[in-house]
Amino acid sequence: MEKKKMAYTEFTIEGRNAVMEAFRSGKTIDKLYVLDGCQDGPVLNIKREAKKHDTILKYVTKERLDQISETGKHQGVIAVAAAYEYASVEDILGAAREKGEDPFLILLDNIEDPHNLGAVIRTANLAGAHGVIIPKNRAVGLTAAVARTSAGALNYTPVAKVTNLAKTIEELKKQGLWFVCADMSGTVMYQVDLKGPIGLVIGSEGEGVGRLVKEKCDMTAAIPMKGDIDSLNASVAAGVLAFEIVRQRGFN
Amino acid sequence: MEKKKMAYTEFTIEGRNAVMEAFRSGKTIDKLYVLDGCQDGPVLNIKREAKKHDTILKYVTKERLDQISETGKHQGVIAVAAAYEYASVEDILGAAREKGEDPFLILLDNIEDPHNLGAVIRTANLAGAHGVIIPKNRAVGLTAAVARTSAGALNYTPVAKVTNLAKTIEELKKQGLWFVCADMSGTVMYQVDLKGPIGLVIGSEGEGVGRLVKEKCDMTAAIPMKGDIDSLNASVAAGVLAFEIVRQRGFN
Repeated sequence: MEKKKMAYTEFTIEGRNAVMEAFRSGKTIDKLYVLDGCQDGPVLNIKREAKKHDTILKYVTKERLDQISETGKHQGVIAVAAAYEYASVEDILGAAREKGEDPFLILLDNIEDPHNLGAVIRTANLAGAHGVIIPKNRAVGLTAAVARTSAGALNYTPVAKVTNLAKTIEELKKQGLWFVCADMSGTVMYQVDLKGPIGLVIGSEGEGVGRLVKEKCDMTAAIPMKGDIDSLNASVAAGVLAFEIVRQRGFN
Repeated sequence: MEKKKMAYTEFTIEGRNAVMEAFRSGKTIDKLYVLDGCQDGPVLNIKREAKKHDTILKYVTKERLDQISETGKHQGVIAVAAAYEYASVEDILGAAREKGEDPFLILLDNIEDPHNLGAVIRTANLAGAHGVIIPKNRAVGLTAAVARTSAGALNYTPVAKVTNLAKTIEELKKQGLWFVCADMSGTVMYQVDLKGPIGLVIGSEGEGVGRLVKEKCDMTAAIPMKGDIDSLNASVAAGVLAFEIVRQRGFN
């Protein structure tokens, strides 16, 4: 297990949904940029939150917002906060223990698209997973684009970054977790027992889960697919499998 | 029912997966730009396909590719083809009839993000849906970004654009289809009967399915969600619900 934290740096959160969620989660927002003259409901709500939290409010032009924006999709609001910190794998297991639940982790191998990472963190949050684990190598970090596509889930769902995914799986297996690898050639997911302490391993769209990581997994599960093309979008595949786990665990 | 076709215009298909799929589907590629000096396996395969189809091959620099690229994610290959054509709703029903299957349609209300549209077309293809219906108003068109994120599914899965989604639903109900609306406040999806001729209606992340469209639906289905945030990514939600339909229909 390793414990790595990102350095504390300034970080922008962009878009109405993401900014509102950041406030609601109690995240410290250092500064809020708002499009001057923008008076619609969602923006007024955000300004109300900002005042409640004594956040510095700056009214700026669209040009200035575009300049500050890292995603180009600020929707008139950009919050500046501390960078999201990576959790440790121990933090994630601790979150499961606290809730008195069997650990449910999502591990991403070779996912490089920030939209996919953001969407998976969002899925993890709503499927009741306790955290997401990504490898250091090649993976995207917790950028503004990831934060935005996570729609605020990054404020609640811990993300850990590990040096060696295969080794982390090995260590977690000693702690009683089972690992299921998403694989088209695997057993149809309905016939795989996905209950109990589990880690769901999702690979990239082109390459799938890497061989070394796959070999460490206890089971492989396939989404039943018809059709003409090769694979689902990685975040969609993660969603379908995560909610199959929800179904099997009982959804209450 | 309406029948609308996009004008025939030049259109780029970008990225290795999307270009390869375009060739494999028999799509006419007018021209193929390849990064000069690029010799890895996937690119060689694409060049082989191009030669087989007598496609004009142009070797260009990275700068030139970046210039031509609409998505910024060409991975060294850009194909120029005719624009994707919209199908009619009749075409989609015809596809179901031909296969001797109950129609399975995915309808998107207010989806504006090309990544989401592309991912949903991809999901539709792999879940065995016969087509996707989008409204003319506000929706994204079949752009290069959509084609790319559909990973080639746009070559197989017809997409129809209609003036009025509520009216289309009404007409399709007369033809025996049932409509289920994705809605967080709906019945848990496992308890909704999703078998038979069905249209799955997915709304935008912020607003959900519009009121007028929702009122036309026969049922509402909810994905069982825990967690702290409001909603799944629209394409993930579409995926989870589409594969619940697959599960209930029997996945063979």
